[in-house]
Amino acid sequence: MNTISRCNDRAPAQLRPVKLTRGYTRYAAGSVLIEYGETKVLCQASILEKIPSFLKDKEQGWLTAEYGMLPCSTGERMQREAVKGNQSGRTMEIQRLIGRALRAVVDLGKLGERTLQIDCDVIQADGGTRTASITGAFVALCDAVQLLLTQGAIQSNPVLDYVAATSVGLVNGCPLLDLDYAEDSSCDTDMNVVMTGTGGLIEIQGTAEGQAFSRQQLDAMLDLAHQGIGELINLQRQVLAAGQ
Amino acid sequence: MNTISRCNDRAPAQLRPVKLTRGYTRYAAGSVLIEYGETKVLCQASILEKIPSFLKDKEQGWLTAEYGMLPCSTGERMQREAVKGNQSGRTMEIQRLIGRALRAVVDLGKLGERTLQIDCDVIQADGGTRTASITGAFVALCDAVQLLLTQGAIQSNPVLDYVAATSVGLVNGCPLLDLDYAEDSSCDTDMNVVMTGTGGLIEIQGTAEGQAFSRQQLDAMLDLAHQGIGELINLQRQVLAAGQ
Amino acid sequence: MNTISRCNDRAPAQLRPVKLTRGYTRYAAGSVLIEYGETKVLCQASILEKIPSFLKDKEQGWLTAEYGMLPCSTGERMQREAVKGNQSGRTMEIQRLIGRALRAVVDLGKLGERTLQIDCDVIQADGGTRTASITGAFVALCDAVQLLLTQGAIQSNPVLDYVAATSVGLVNGCPLLDLDYAEDSSCDTDMNVVMTGTGGLIEIQGTAEGQAFSRQQLDAMLDLAHQGIGELINLQRQVLAAGQ
Amino acid sequence: MNTISRCNDRAPAQLRPVKLTRGYTRYAAGSVLIEYGETKVLCQASILEKIPSFLKDKEQGWLTAEYGMLPCSTGERMQREAVKGNQSGRTMEIQRLIGRALRAVVDLGKLGERTLQIDCDVIQADGGTRTASITGAFVALCDAVQLLLTQGAIQSNPVLDYVAATSVGLVNGCPLLDLDYAEDSSCDTDMNVVMTGTGGLIEIQGTAEGQAFSRQQLDAMLDLAHQGIGELINLQRQVLAAGQ
Amino acid sequence: MNTISRCNDRAPAQLRPVKLTRGYTRYAAGSVLIEYGETKVLCQASILEKIPSFLKDKEQGWLTAEYGMLPCSTGERMQREAVKGNQSGRTMEIQRLIGRALRAVVDLGKLGERTLQIDCDVIQADGGTRTASITGAFVALCDAVQLLLTQGAIQSNPVLDYVAATSVGLVNGCPLLDLDYAEDSSCDTDMNVVMTGTGGLIEIQGTAEGQAFSRQQLDAMLDLAHQGIGELINLQRQVLAAGQ
Amino acid sequence: MNTISRCNDRAPAQLRPVKLTRGYTRYAAGSVLIEYGETKVLCQASILEKIPSFLKDKEQGWLTAEYGMLPCSTGERMQREAVKGNQSGRTMEIQRLIGRALRAVVDLGKLGERTLQIDCDVIQADGGTRTASITGAFVALCDAVQLLLTQGAIQSNPVLDYVAATSVGLVNGCPLLDLDYAEDSSCDTDMNVVMTGTGGLIEIQGTAEGQAFSRQQLDAMLDLAHQGIGELINLQRQVLAAGQ
Repeated sequence: MNTISRCNDRAPAQLRPVKLTRGYTRYAAGSVLIEYGETKVLCQASILEKIPSFLKDKEQGWLTAEYGMLPCSTGERMQREAVKGNQSGRTMEIQRLIGRALRAVVDLGKLGERTLQIDCDVIQADGGTRTASITGAFVALCDAVQLLLTQGAIQSNPVLDYVAATSVGLVNGCPLLDLDYAEDSSCDTDMNVVMTGTGGLIEIQGTAEGQAFSRQQLDAMLDLAHQGIGELINLQRQVLAAGQ
Repeated sequence: MNTISRCNDRAPAQLRPVKLTRGYTRYAAGSVLIEYGETKVLCQASILEKIPSFLKDKEQGWLTAEYGMLPCSTGERMQREAVKGNQSGRTMEIQRLIGRALRAVVDLGKLGERTLQIDCDVIQADGGTRTASITGAFVALCDAVQLLLTQGAIQSNPVLDYVAATSVGLVNGCPLLDLDYAEDSSCDTDMNVVMTGTGGLIEIQGTAEGQAFSRQQLDAMLDLAHQGIGELINLQRQVLAAGQ
Repeated sequence: MNTISRCNDRAPAQLRPVKLTRGYTRYAAGSVLIEYGETKVLCQASILEKIPSFLKDKEQGWLTAEYGMLPCSTGERMQREAVKGNQSGRTMEIQRLIGRALRAVVDLGKLGERTLQIDCDVIQADGGTRTASITGAFVALCDAVQLLLTQGAIQSNPVLDYVAATSVGLVNGCPLLDLDYAEDSSCDTDMNVVMTGTGGLIEIQGTAEGQAFSRQQLDAMLDLAHQGIGELINLQRQVLAAGQ
Repeated sequence: MNTISRCNDRAPAQLRPVKLTRGYTRYAAGSVLIEYGETKVLCQASILEKIPSFLKDKEQGWLTAEYGMLPCSTGERMQREAVKGNQSGRTMEIQRLIGRALRAVVDLGKLGERTLQIDCDVIQADGGTRTASITGAFVALCDAVQLLLTQGAIQSNPVLDYVAATSVGLVNGCPLLDLDYAEDSSCDTDMNVVMTGTGGLIEIQGTAEGQAFSRQQLDAMLDLAHQGIGELINLQRQVLAAGQ
Repeated sequence: MNTISRCNDRAPAQLRPVKLTRGYTRYAAGSVLIEYGETKVLCQASILEKIPSFLKDKEQGWLTAEYGMLPCSTGERMQREAVKGNQSGRTMEIQRLIGRALRAVVDLGKLGERTLQIDCDVIQADGGTRTASITGAFVALCDAVQLLLTQGAIQSNPVLDYVAATSVGLVNGCPLLDLDYAEDSSCDTDMNVVMTGTGGLIEIQGTAEGQAFSRQQLDAMLDLAHQGIGELINLQRQVLAAGQ
Repeated sequence: MNTISRCNDRAPAQLRPVKLTRGYTRYAAGSVLIEYGETKVLCQASILEKIPSFLKDKEQGWLTAEYGMLPCSTGERMQREAVKGNQSGRTMEIQRLIGRALRAVVDLGKLGERTLQIDCDVIQADGGTRTASITGAFVALCDAVQLLLTQGAIQSNPVLDYVAATSVGLVNGCPLLDLDYAEDSSCDTDMNVVMTGTGGLIEIQGTAEGQAFSRQQLDAMLDLAHQGIGELINLQRQVLAAGQ
């Protein structure tokens, strides 16, 4: 295995500095700015007193997510999706992933007939926006759920477990944790992994960009992801324990 | 004239606390977070090396603006325009206003065949988002222009004057400067005023919400706006003088 | 102040010939063709027995307006908005203005749970289409309201005052009333003013196209608008008094 | 065969009063208001100095048509297509028909690389809007072509023949010429016929609304259409001979 | 009249080989692959337990059709309409025709408050896709109706008559039955005819592509269509008699 | 591990019957109907002599894919995306996956400046449409490439390896190969795996639907996928060896 030189002398198995700021804005039920190094995503959770029509009379709630990037969040300005008139395939793919990941740790039957609406808006993008979105949105979600409990709107906590996400990849054959944009652009394989606080896998999405990867390489990447997500969930625990 | 009690003991002729943070993100040529009290708008300026087709062969540049609100920026979550599939009439009206206001103080002939693209994205909305956008975008614009000068892309500064904006209104017949959301929702008249550093009027948009207003009331509101915009331009001067 | 030569020897403070034709088509509740010189707008008012959802259970009615231009109404053919697939920002801005202006003189509580739907369609455009739309739509609105009264659908007249609109502007520093297209294209400042029959201001929208304008120039333009709107309201009075 | 009582004592083989007003607006190259009784359509022809991409390098011109209805043109107000965001299937079907009918009598090779753009906008609809559009647009087209000839832009007249259209139908088994809206709504069969000045058929579109029709009934309807279109073409001749 | 040489030595009055395959897929209530030579259309009928809002409380059902072409169904790949974002005018025109043709032989009052939804999807296109769609969809419709009868959802058969369609045309002045793509592209006149089992005309749509056609030519084409549709309806009879 | 009873007595590690029919339609460069049991997808490859603008002057080709489902392909009829006006998030996600998977085995530098356009249209859906699409599209792609070689348009074969895909899942904790719709709807985890002929991983997408999955379960699923894809690639080999 080669030695890879990473930005800021980061080790292959090292996350970028992670920062979670709760209460970043004042109107949403939960509002968290998450930073994975230079990647900054504003994750917000709103409580909507309605459910989609396909859940009518099922006595349960729903959780769904939307994702967007500010036009100037990237090195080269992106076109605003509201101007273009639709969301790109990439955007839809990411917001579907965020929703699935969070639903996996929420007991929707305990929510009542309401929707937890998650919004992840990328302020600055340096790789890993979808994984940062999941990790940050989980904290915003907990804050929104706490509000429902405090208001007496629900009786018991529907959150079943922690959930967080990171990317891993192969760069020149070397497994790296938490790719930044430059690494992501040049990697052979890029994999996003979502895991729970008890170590269960929720989602793995691995894509060979340049050449195919082997089972051994997959295992090495999953080991890195397991370790990194453990660290992320420890951070979530600390931040949530601190109170808002 | 009645006495009006404003939030935080603000006087009728008093602006909310204004804060300008330059370099808020790292990729745009100019990036400024502006706060008018609880209203927070991220104003960014990008340099695009192209011009709209209606300016082909006219040997000049262009400046245009886009505006958006994050779904959770308001008390009740708004639908995301990228999901709805188009920008609302209000959004288009505001971004057209921002573009016109800034073009009024830029000599487009000195820009070369490039576009200054302004993006104003509302992080939190408590009234006055369009006026804060103009005041903040002017500073972002200056930073982008400075970059062009430093790079030698342009030879002389195309910025002709300062420009800033505020709202004024009549609440229970009393003229107030810089309305917050609660005041804006209950006012009789709402007026947005854009002025230059030399005191010239660029745009006035006054609307009677409840009942018509008189020429005397118009004059009182314009006096307030004149004073408030003077203070805003002083802040722009200080912030720009400080260097980035 | 310079002397300006206007088309057809019009004086600076002189409106173009104004003509209001009621009953221009047969199906709408109110149908008025208004002409400001060569500008011709068909203003129609329909009664819809429904209200928008945000007014449910508020025991009041609504008034809203739509605006469009026929593709051949302008010197160079415009693209049809139904083909393009959406209304432009300019169109939305204008129809929002028309709706606000008319709502300012209608007591929506007296309308019952129905909507007055205004349609302003420009047959020929020579400047001032938005102000002609407001002046003409007021008459169409009165005819529709009269129909509701005659039918016994409402008991008392919800129309509180007259309303009309004109543009004023500065051309070479000279204030002019009721700009035609050529004047509008070359003016320094363009301002649209909406006033009531009792002289109250409903809306002012002034924009410096070339250079900023002063408070003195604003006052001169408002004086012109006040006079011109007075004449327009006299015409509305005569036309409505004549019976249909 | 039954006797049918028609509005205004019209005979089964009688057209409604037809009126053609040339020069109805001032900006289009050809502008004609056509009336078939209470049906009123503004037909305009513009000259665009461009051709669609599928005709590149074929050394010929093009002719295309668009059709629209003003929202208040019908008894019950229709939704504005620019607001709805697309043209209905009916609208597209009609504008394709108008374009085909007119192209059948124009030698596109003589037009040069330009497009004759036809716009048919329905001011008031009482049945037969598509046939009135064709008859009126032919006159507008001739005026636009005359302009090209006068300007020397083309050397010879590309118009090969007259063309006009009418509807015919079966009401209670009785063939009627030129159906109005009430007749069209209650007929068994509705047929639109487009013919040239030399009696050639360009388009027939017959639809059984209630029950199927026989070859004999088809023949009777075609006889009526032949007679009616002959009268319409005589009117076109007179109007065009009169000069503008 | 000239002699025309057709592909595969086909005579002017000869249909291409026609094949109807029932039960082509397993989920739709009726599913028929129809082939007119190399033209292949999958015609499916679904039963939807809802009706459009304009039929509320009218105690009847509805039948509507949609049409689409697979992108590779044509010689040169077509753009996918789902990607383009709307259906073309041609597509809408065709699906409206299919719906009208089938409704002409269905007693909607006997359907109950449900919709027969027809889908015609072109797998391979060699001319005549709209006429093949009608002929094939009729068989799919009968299968869906039979299912409703078997299930006891309806008591009596709402299908009143057979219906089928063919194209006819003039190529070099010679009338031809059932045009393939090459013939359709080079013909002078193209006509689509829809007839019932009892010989009634449901729809005729004849268009002069190159030059006008005469009444005699129309009669010759209708004679051909009459004969061809008779053969098509015989095939429908045989296929339906065979049981599924 | 429990015993699972599968439809048609299928063993947990058994694929459904797979059938590949080349030359299914006649116009596309490659046209393959693939069946995974009752799932039927028409996979077609077209050669477009153009490249997307982001590849201008890079001297390489491109490969992209589109995916669609016929409205009647599923048990309950789906809305047609062309009518709805856009592709769903699921559709976009799938077509992006198909494109990535195929690009992984194609040397785009050998294609010349042209695009291989893949279309996968689902005729009947019983689970696994995206994996069947990849497996079938690879064969269609080979046929299109063979055509380019035969025509001399390219000199050497750009296809680097075989590629095929299958789904695996956990149902009641039991790993199953190639899920049908009923299994997919009730599984705990659903994973799609794309592998090359030399056993390299191209893409894995595993999603916990009900509860999280462990590393051991992941390994068991990957073993099944490895075996199944080996069988699929053998089938591709046989079919391609047979000649068209």
